[in-house]
Amino acid sequence: MALVVQKYGGSSVADAERVRRVAERIVESKKAGDDVVVVCSAMGDTTDDLLDLAQQVCSNPPARELDMLLTAGERISNALVAMAIEELGCQARSFTGSQAGVITTGVHGKAKIIDVTPGRLQDALGQDQVVLVAGFQGVSQDTKDVTTLGRGGSDTTAVALAAALKADVCEIYTDVDGIFSADPRIVPNARKLATVTFEEMLELAACGAKVLMLRCVEYARRYHLPIHVRSSYSDKPGTIVSGSIKDIPMEDALLTGVAHDKSEAKVTVVGIPDLPGYAAKIFRAVADADINIDMVLQNVSKVEGGKTDITFTCPHDSGPAAVAKLESLRGEIGFTEVLYDDKVGKVSLIGAGMRSHPGVTATFCETLADNGVNIDLISTSEIRISVLVHETDLDKAVRSLHEAFNLGSDEEATVYGGTGR
Amino acid sequence: MALVVQKYGGSSVADAERVRRVAERIVESKKAGDDVVVVCSAMGDTTDDLLDLAQQVCSNPPARELDMLLTAGERISNALVAMAIEELGCQARSFTGSQAGVITTGVHGKAKIIDVTPGRLQDALGQDQVVLVAGFQGVSQDTKDVTTLGRGGSDTTAVALAAALKADVCEIYTDVDGIFSADPRIVPNARKLATVTFEEMLELAACGAKVLMLRCVEYARRYHLPIHVRSSYSDKPGTIVSGSIKDIPMEDALLTGVAHDKSEAKVTVVGIPDLPGYAAKIFRAVADADINIDMVLQNVSKVEGGKTDITFTCPHDSGPAAVAKLESLRGEIGFTEVLYDDKVGKVSLIGAGMRSHPGVTATFCETLADNGVNIDLISTSEIRISVLVHETDLDKAVRSLHEAFNLGSDEEATVYGGTGR
Repeated sequence: MALVVQKYGGSSVADAERVRRVAERIVESKKAGDDVVVVCSAMGDTTDDLLDLAQQVCSNPPARELDMLLTAGERISNALVAMAIEELGCQARSFTGSQAGVITTGVHGKAKIIDVTPGRLQDALGQDQVVLVAGFQGVSQDTKDVTTLGRGGSDTTAVALAAALKADVCEIYTDVDGIFSADPRIVPNARKLATVTFEEMLELAACGAKVLMLRCVEYARRYHLPIHVRSSYSDKPGTIVSGSIKDIPMEDALLTGVAHDKSEAKVTVVGIPDLPGYAAKIFRAVADADINIDMVLQNVSKVEGGKTDITFTCPHDSGPAAVAKLESLRGEIGFTEVLYDDKVGKVSLIGAGMRSHPGVTATFCETLADNGVNIDLISTSEIRISVLVHETDLDKAVRSLHEAFNLGSDEEATVYGGTGR
Repeated sequence: MALVVQKYGGSSVADAERVRRVAERIVESKKAGDDVVVVCSAMGDTTDDLLDLAQQVCSNPPARELDMLLTAGERISNALVAMAIEELGCQARSFTGSQAGVITTGVHGKAKIIDVTPGRLQDALGQDQVVLVAGFQGVSQDTKDVTTLGRGGSDTTAVALAAALKADVCEIYTDVDGIFSADPRIVPNARKLATVTFEEMLELAACGAKVLMLRCVEYARRYHLPIHVRSSYSDKPGTIVSGSIKDIPMEDALLTGVAHDKSEAKVTVVGIPDLPGYAAKIFRAVADADINIDMVLQNVSKVEGGKTDITFTCPHDSGPAAVAKLESLRGEIGFTEVLYDDKVGKVSLIGAGMRSHPGVTATFCETLADNGVNIDLISTSEIRISVLVHETDLDKAVRSLHEAFNLGSDEEATVYGGTGR
């Protein structure tokens, strides 16, 4: 008998019919002899509808109240799934994040989990109940107010509960069959990966693979908790995320996949004095504006004591704020101008095999050159190469790299619509 | 500076526009210098929509999960009103029933308030915040599960909070202008009452006046807490419910109003042995089926050791269950048959003045006779006369009694649509 945590996204519980289907799947697991803990996101568009309402009554809704409002969504979906399970003859009990002991920081809208004290869940499991927990939410350690965890919050809830309950596996049910070697909407013969290591999954998530959020993978890695990413519409096995690249014999390591990301913009600060401390001033300014940066490139200046340029990427949404912040400090820092380009895309090749296969970078660049794709920026890690290209070249870059590194399978991937929270 | 608890029904917060209007009214009170605690029901049809969803996934939804589901409604409305208040420049904080310290029994769907420990509310009031509390809900003392209070729950929440916080008044905002001498939809010149004593209000509520629920009036009476029933659509003063009939000088006491109720059904048990203990058997059987009875009539049997009939009324909904329960015991108890009639209505005249004005019962019966209304059953208290009539005679009975006792005013009452929870 195993202890399984299952997480279902918003599209999996979008209406009564789907709620019933999810309940059937849960009851199957339960009847197979497993203890089951379930985390559901809010139904379909509930969160957007609630946000709409909030905007209608307040131009800038206070974060505490927004959390109070949005957490109603998961409360509804979890209670409904509990009812649907009871209809099938099993006993079920739903809990709010607070009742489940999900203790968080007090930052409304993007709280972080500090601790999980699942005493009530363990009691319910001991009574042979299916346990449902509202995802995406917790309770602030200091104020005891309701908090939400921000993007990927329900996945993170599931992984955190699995870790606290010492579950055998955390199953993330979603609208795709697993993790693919590339986005099947761009690369029709993308291959579903049977297993991926945590490190590779972290790079994939950081590079735009949307199936799992970075924070949830980080959490699972820290607690050595296997994640099974699979489809809520089929019974096929999905992708198991577990283990470390260190445990893969060097000779066996392969390239994993090609990820892409359209959510970044490129900021170039032109004409910075090429002296110690100036780059630091730039990045301090951006950090002060609470903007995360991703790739960074600094050109070498041609003459000593001359000028240099610094380019970095940041999320689209934060681009204008980054530019405004830098412009406001132009005189103080002493650069010439700021250039902004949001028509860019990032394509990344990821795989533990990169360590043992020389020439990957060369093949990578040759492939893009052969396909007429210009490289703007390059950034690498031990198991990843990422480049920034023009957004109109992005799909071509993904397809050609996927082909060049022979990552495809013989069959076409199934693509479903929608996405969860 | 007063401490005011305001309660708004579901129709008062049915959409974003109404939420904004409610917020304006709250901010007015706050700016006038009062401390304000607000209880809102769920928006418009939210509760019905959630019940619909529940029915779609489960034929007999477990009560615990139903409470978890339904309490999402008040959470949403209160968070939205808090946001709308912030938009107007005041600070507001919403609390769930559990956070507000509304401790209840564990009977899901119809929990009773055991205690209110409003520490967090007092802290927020101390910080000059407008406090919002989700009505209709609490937390079970034993299981710490979320509970709902059943019908009239939001009003009861408001009154209980007002009592615990030692508020100066509890304002119940609704879709009528106050308590009327009769239902204005039946009697166009019904008079809005400026004040009503708790005893009279209890009788009115028990006899079908739907503006305030019995339990909320009982709560207010116990804590000597004045209730101000008023319209959320106008600034006109409504009706103050306070004081006792004992404090009204006998000479000043008047008749208050005519109430009616179509929600009851009549059950007659025919041919019961006229011996001690048989009536008790009947009522024990009905009580065992968890059915509340209202009026009771037992005819005197014509011969010693003969047979008698017992008639009682109970809610429509429970009628068939009462009949079935009695039928199942027919042999054991030894009566002849059970008659059932749900085409009945109850009309009641209420007023402290009844104690000091002889002849009220005579005028009451004469009026109905003059209007061709047959009386089925009579039941009285110190300040009330109620009779059961055929349902088609009900409106005529209300109108003629209201006229005969000269309860009307010179102007027509304003009637709004909808009703709250």
